[in-house]
Amino acid sequence: MKTTAVIMAGGKGERFWPRSRTKTPKQFLSLTSDRETMIQKTVKRLLPIVSPEDIFIVTNVLYAGLAAEQLPEIPAENIILEPCGRNTAPCISLAAAVIEKKYGGEAMMLVLPSDHLIRYEDMYTDTLRQAISVAETGDRLVTIGITPTYPETGYGYIQFERDSTLGMHGVYQVSRFVEKPDLETAKSYLASRRYLWNSGMFVWKTSTILKAMEKFMPEVYEGTKAIAESYGTDEFKAVLERDYEKLPSESVDFGIMEKADEIYTLPGSFGWDDVGSWLAVERINSTNELGNYVEGDVITIGTEHSTICGGKRLVAAVGVDNIIVVDTDDALLICSKDKTQDVKKVIENLKICNRASLL
Amino acid sequence: MKTTAVIMAGGKGERFWPRSRTKTPKQFLSLTSDRETMIQKTVKRLLPIVSPEDIFIVTNVLYAGLAAEQLPEIPAENIILEPCGRNTAPCISLAAAVIEKKYGGEAMMLVLPSDHLIRYEDMYTDTLRQAISVAETGDRLVTIGITPTYPETGYGYIQFERDSTLGMHGVYQVSRFVEKPDLETAKSYLASRRYLWNSGMFVWKTSTILKAMEKFMPEVYEGTKAIAESYGTDEFKAVLERDYEKLPSESVDFGIMEKADEIYTLPGSFGWDDVGSWLAVERINSTNELGNYVEGDVITIGTEHSTICGGKRLVAAVGVDNIIVVDTDDALLICSKDKTQDVKKVIENLKICNRASLL
Repeated sequence: MKTTAVIMAGGKGERFWPRSRTKTPKQFLSLTSDRETMIQKTVKRLLPIVSPEDIFIVTNVLYAGLAAEQLPEIPAENIILEPCGRNTAPCISLAAAVIEKKYGGEAMMLVLPSDHLIRYEDMYTDTLRQAISVAETGDRLVTIGITPTYPETGYGYIQFERDSTLGMHGVYQVSRFVEKPDLETAKSYLASRRYLWNSGMFVWKTSTILKAMEKFMPEVYEGTKAIAESYGTDEFKAVLERDYEKLPSESVDFGIMEKADEIYTLPGSFGWDDVGSWLAVERINSTNELGNYVEGDVITIGTEHSTICGGKRLVAAVGVDNIIVVDTDDALLICSKDKTQDVKKVIENLKICNRASLL
Repeated sequence: MKTTAVIMAGGKGERFWPRSRTKTPKQFLSLTSDRETMIQKTVKRLLPIVSPEDIFIVTNVLYAGLAAEQLPEIPAENIILEPCGRNTAPCISLAAAVIEKKYGGEAMMLVLPSDHLIRYEDMYTDTLRQAISVAETGDRLVTIGITPTYPETGYGYIQFERDSTLGMHGVYQVSRFVEKPDLETAKSYLASRRYLWNSGMFVWKTSTILKAMEKFMPEVYEGTKAIAESYGTDEFKAVLERDYEKLPSESVDFGIMEKADEIYTLPGSFGWDDVGSWLAVERINSTNELGNYVEGDVITIGTEHSTICGGKRLVAAVGVDNIIVVDTDDALLICSKDKTQDVKKVIENLKICNRASLL
């Protein structure tokens, strides 16, 4: 069976303001010291198991230019342009229907975020290969879980059965999907050793996910099926633009995974990082002996445990600790490390004040 | 007797980097919300007691253009351009000699820094008038002291006799001048109530200070007298340029005030601030209800007790406390409030690296 991949790249990446902007969100930026962007890395690490012509990108129409420019190896017809965001369920359902239309039948389908970091790429492809072998038989929905290392309250969790199953080491049946917990609950999940983080990476056959869509989200199923009918014709773009926004906005986690049976999870141990805030930059890059990560023209005096991403000017940091500084041509962020979630409040402020050029 | 004033304006103002630069030091900047620069304010507040044509500016030759531009009311021949800094003793001795040359004899001479802030200008001129009346008789050196409010270790101190003297309320004989103390000593000075801060403002007759120079600093006296001989001729500029650098570099505090007798002090209570570091900016401007002083395009989220001086770009401060941010076109400073003295280390670093354009 043909193996395809769907990379979801519609996010706005607001938590990386001011480096990420509405016009260039996080997945189209490099947040590491090398020059490849997050989405370029995502495609590259898939190449051992998926050919470029079988990789699909679902992104916002705003990013058509960025996607084409950064991913010249992906065929133009594989870049599906959403006129608006409708969360992951419509995105995945449409992609599955498009793939069936393009290949004239079912295919294996990897569903992957575009803006995560994977440190050990060989282990990653090994895990995906095993997930494929689980998903090939029957109608199994497979999700890649991540072993939690601390009680994160910003992720959904996957509760799994204690013993591995299907006669395969490292494959567990999922008991349930749960949404972002509060801190106490997250701590109990960690203590129980029965929960994994939900990484948002899924493996299934197009036929399997479409059956699940038909059962649990019929409106999404019918709507995306109708849109996909026109795939490959001159009508597709217009139909997508007209009908996609009519679909309900819902996540595949809530719409399918929390309801379906026959869900399996493989705990991934490939150095995953969701690169969820500026705090990630020091995790994914190396810090110096004072605990600082600096890039650009930076002088630090008595400064520790700080992340300083300079722009075109000199940045001098004197006597500061646990701070994040991000400099760009038109906006500068200075943020305490324990308040990175509040960067969104800056964005809200800019929206209220109609300062679109800074968003 | 003619009253003249000498404004010392040769300082580099490195503690206000990156706003102050070698080419535009602090005295030629406005650090308050209005547009007048420090030196313009200094001249303006003197006008009730000194005419503009009797005000002299001693500054570095680098600042000839700035001084002429910002102080059009001061005659060009009153702007004395030092080819290099030699501290306050040669500066004051030369100015005294130049004044005697220009007026053909002694004059009253106010010696004032160019970069301090005075909140109550009427009280200031009242104090100067009283100082003049003290200095008129005999050979008295008069200094304006400031009542300390905390044990500052960055200033010199003046110890004064307990009872007022000369039959004048608020005039005290000086027991001794002392250099910058350590913290314990500064605390004991404060507790004793016998010490004032040395503000660097002096009042005396040109004849009095020149006699003191002749006695305690004969080399400075002879050297500056020789230079002043050419004042008013085409030779002056060349002589100054050739001979000024040969003078020893010394302060009037160490060279004269710590050695002379017949020194009187008047405690000034006119809202003095030496504007000695970025910390002064929140003192001299008003802060908002969160204790922040902001200027320019600034968004603060959960930020308190901070000074944020924006430049041409948006500055967003999130969750920071007790921090100073100063943005300019080519350099940005982020400094903890308790480390403002270390801004000098940034300058040292820039000097070592030959980055003159940023100094």
